[in-house]
Amino acid sequence: MAEVLVVGSVAFDSVETPFGKADNVLGGAASFFSLAAGLFTPVRLVATVGADFPDDFVRHFVARGIDLGGLERRADGATFRWVGDYGYDLNIAHTIDTQLNVFADFAPQLPENYRDTKFVYLANILPSLQLDVLSQVRNPEFVGLDSMNFWIENPKTKAILSQVIERVDAVFMNDTEIRQYTGQYNLIAAGRAVLAQGPKVVLIKKGEHGAIALSPHGLFVTSAFPLDAPRDPTGAGDSFAGGFMGYLAATGDTSWAGIKRAMAYGSVVASFAVEDFSVHRLLSLSLAEVCDRYAHLSDITTLEAQILDALSS
Amino acid sequence: MAEVLVVGSVAFDSVETPFGKADNVLGGAASFFSLAAGLFTPVRLVATVGADFPDDFVRHFVARGIDLGGLERRADGATFRWVGDYGYDLNIAHTIDTQLNVFADFAPQLPENYRDTKFVYLANILPSLQLDVLSQVRNPEFVGLDSMNFWIENPKTKAILSQVIERVDAVFMNDTEIRQYTGQYNLIAAGRAVLAQGPKVVLIKKGEHGAIALSPHGLFVTSAFPLDAPRDPTGAGDSFAGGFMGYLAATGDTSWAGIKRAMAYGSVVASFAVEDFSVHRLLSLSLAEVCDRYAHLSDITTLEAQILDALSS
Repeated sequence: MAEVLVVGSVAFDSVETPFGKADNVLGGAASFFSLAAGLFTPVRLVATVGADFPDDFVRHFVARGIDLGGLERRADGATFRWVGDYGYDLNIAHTIDTQLNVFADFAPQLPENYRDTKFVYLANILPSLQLDVLSQVRNPEFVGLDSMNFWIENPKTKAILSQVIERVDAVFMNDTEIRQYTGQYNLIAAGRAVLAQGPKVVLIKKGEHGAIALSPHGLFVTSAFPLDAPRDPTGAGDSFAGGFMGYLAATGDTSWAGIKRAMAYGSVVASFAVEDFSVHRLLSLSLAEVCDRYAHLSDITTLEAQILDALSS
Repeated sequence: MAEVLVVGSVAFDSVETPFGKADNVLGGAASFFSLAAGLFTPVRLVATVGADFPDDFVRHFVARGIDLGGLERRADGATFRWVGDYGYDLNIAHTIDTQLNVFADFAPQLPENYRDTKFVYLANILPSLQLDVLSQVRNPEFVGLDSMNFWIENPKTKAILSQVIERVDAVFMNDTEIRQYTGQYNLIAAGRAVLAQGPKVVLIKKGEHGAIALSPHGLFVTSAFPLDAPRDPTGAGDSFAGGFMGYLAATGDTSWAGIKRAMAYGSVVASFAVEDFSVHRLLSLSLAEVCDRYAHLSDITTLEAQILDALSS
């Protein structure tokens, strides 16, 4: 069972959806990712927070056994804050306010004992920082990468993002991001374009519509687990990546079969994450619940065997 | 192998998408439905066309063995015409022009030998006409129903639509329609609300995002077969219904297992329909190709078996 290293944001979120509201709750890509991946395997977290970051939040990570040796707590600043809301279409987030605070000059430094981590997730940060993290890890086996529209829109950061993509194994993008990055509307065509840059697999996240994986071995499509009362989609993508990378690291199986399984685990973990605000549902989640829902998802999506013999004859 | 009866529109379509353009081609819900269902089982078509309806189009139906005893050809009028276009988001149709012509006073009369048909599909027509068709069939085994926003928006026609829904076995609606009909945004909640009105199954069509079935036996979710070059989504929903009803009638298996299989066949047939404009791809389609793609869809969506024993222990 190998460890997973994640580098990304830990934040205060204030979120409103048609199903409720939560202020100053734990957010940030690295928070969702590490609490999700931590269900499967030990996680090493590299992030920065301010003096205002409460011990209660630290305890959430500790309770999942997450290694906080790379969590910088800066006395001279405040934690990153994001304020956003969603309408009924939970696939579309509206940012109301972003205060980068200590995240503005985040310069990830990996503790020496982190540098041999074999499974690495570069959450959404400045692409040049992602490159810098890659230069700090010695010989990673499998690197996953996330990004966002902000870095794709700017030609300079997009060029660096392309360099990062050429060096990683898995690229996670949502439908909007991959269309923007490739200039291709069709998701299969867009996925192939990214794949041509070198990664082993491209994971296209479609929120409540599931996800598509493309690899040189072919395509794989997962449906999202259908929910009758999702409450807050914030962090769904990073929970998906956390389940995916956590499963890969736990099993060490990076074959195409392993990647397909990892994708389904990611999808299941994400379906729990959106059941409540912030990381609340992830905190109470157990691996047994994940396995139960995996079986349930399999049940409600597996095509019945064909019995058209009578017709064909 | 039982017959399927369909009552609905046969039309001239003029369609433009980012991938091409087709003028005055064969369209209409009953056209797509019958050419799809005809892959599986004999189809009886009830529709009306004008003097301008070309023999070439008639031959398309004949070539698939469709019974045209219920196709009224009116010398005193013109065929229904629809003009529309789509942007890159093929899930959204824009109607540019509709000329009802002979469809405006369509009053479906079932030939005597059609009245004992066991599998009946009420394509999208005025709900009062759908009720009237139901009064003409003697003892149907399985009735499917489609509708549209136009009848849902008007409280009078909506009330009659509700009466039809109470009397059918399967309700086909797309995501927008079922939200509008039930006032529920969440699709699972919306599906349950329709199910509470009496049908055995509710089929929620999500276009390129697949479909969800709800029944008292549970949920079933199918992904759409991923295409890298869809060209024209017109008729996808009716092709889905045609594959579904055709399969049910061919096998006679209306159990929940049969319905799930039918849904996957419908989804596969629809994926072919959108590969070309009008009914072109359906015309060249064979049941063997449908079965091949069914197997392919199963391949790229079936979750790998769980192997988390190592983790749990």
